[in-house]
Amino acid sequence: MNMPNRTCIMRLSRYRNAIIRLKALNFVRVFSDNLADAASVTAAQVRKDFSIFGIAGHRRGGYQVDDLLSKLSKILGKDQIQEIILVGVGNIGKALLHYPGFEKSGIRIVVGFDIDPTKHIADTNIPILPLEKMHDYILTNNIKLGIIAVPDYAAQQVLEMMKSAGIKGVLNFAPICLRESADCVINNVNLVTELENIIYFIKAGDNARSK
Amino acid sequence: MNMPNRTCIMRLSRYRNAIIRLKALNFVRVFSDNLADAASVTAAQVRKDFSIFGIAGHRRGGYQVDDLLSKLSKILGKDQIQEIILVGVGNIGKALLHYPGFEKSGIRIVVGFDIDPTKHIADTNIPILPLEKMHDYILTNNIKLGIIAVPDYAAQQVLEMMKSAGIKGVLNFAPICLRESADCVINNVNLVTELENIIYFIKAGDNARSK
Repeated sequence: MNMPNRTCIMRLSRYRNAIIRLKALNFVRVFSDNLADAASVTAAQVRKDFSIFGIAGHRRGGYQVDDLLSKLSKILGKDQIQEIILVGVGNIGKALLHYPGFEKSGIRIVVGFDIDPTKHIADTNIPILPLEKMHDYILTNNIKLGIIAVPDYAAQQVLEMMKSAGIKGVLNFAPICLRESADCVINNVNLVTELENIIYFIKAGDNARSK
Repeated sequence: MNMPNRTCIMRLSRYRNAIIRLKALNFVRVFSDNLADAASVTAAQVRKDFSIFGIAGHRRGGYQVDDLLSKLSKILGKDQIQEIILVGVGNIGKALLHYPGFEKSGIRIVVGFDIDPTKHIADTNIPILPLEKMHDYILTNNIKLGIIAVPDYAAQQVLEMMKSAGIKGVLNFAPICLRESADCVINNVNLVTELENIIYFIKAGDNARSK
């Protein structure tokens, strides 16, 4: 099997999201063209992505929605609840604690850690603990996933603490690029960088038009 | 000039963030190796990215920090304040209104729109207006940038409203993949997809080790 890359897995997530919506509309079959439209890719790309995982459709019949959904769910680890910890309960951290999309997708934030654990959230039952309890919590509960939402200067240290306790994957919102290592996968989400990217391409478009 | 792609512009943002930090440490010169370390790329990549924009260093002397910073700032449109509107003042929207990283980077959210404008934010001065005022606001204030933080079912409609009023770039947090068009650049940020991506690669690592 070819090893899929990150963008391939991103697309599988999108296909799966689209299938869930189509299933809600009572679709029983779905075609690569449908998924291509929903994920803004070509139908050939959809079929290629599926073929990496040995998922084959019928030329005229497309894919069975239920079968495809269960296969994609298994690949993406959605066949079980994923427990995740959050470090940093500031503005971004609080928003993530309230984000309904995670629970819907089988991802559950089980605890928040902060240097100031009095940052209690009134309207959730998720406990907020002091940072020094993190190491034991990760070990005791066998947690593999963490979200970093601390200020930039604290991010690297929090990452090291997480890794030493056994965290294997991190979603980082601190505005600094944390480095991946062999024992820990990292996705850096930098909101400012995303906006700067858009700004550049708007300006580039303006320049092209004014020439 | 070669047209830079999105990942190139993302790297320029990272270089710029690193340079700002190095400047705070009183660096006067910086080398491609420094920036490579900070952005987790190779030094050759740094030099290649800079060469696209005609930025050249001195072989032994590296780059002048001030000069490099002002060039990158100009490329990324940071030489002027970027005004941006936010649509959807739920959990994610509220967090973005409070996110200190934008203001620091010269990006200012000037107004929020929501179908329920009573969603007032106590501790900011940013006004929250009803959605039907958006069109006029965008036109009157010549706004080009918007953030979508509404539920998935409303996202496409909000995008069309934005585009019809003249918005040219959108950062989308709704968990649906909005499609780019010739007249509007879109960056989709899907938090669930980011996490699913990490989960997949953790599982793939586990499988590889157990073989």
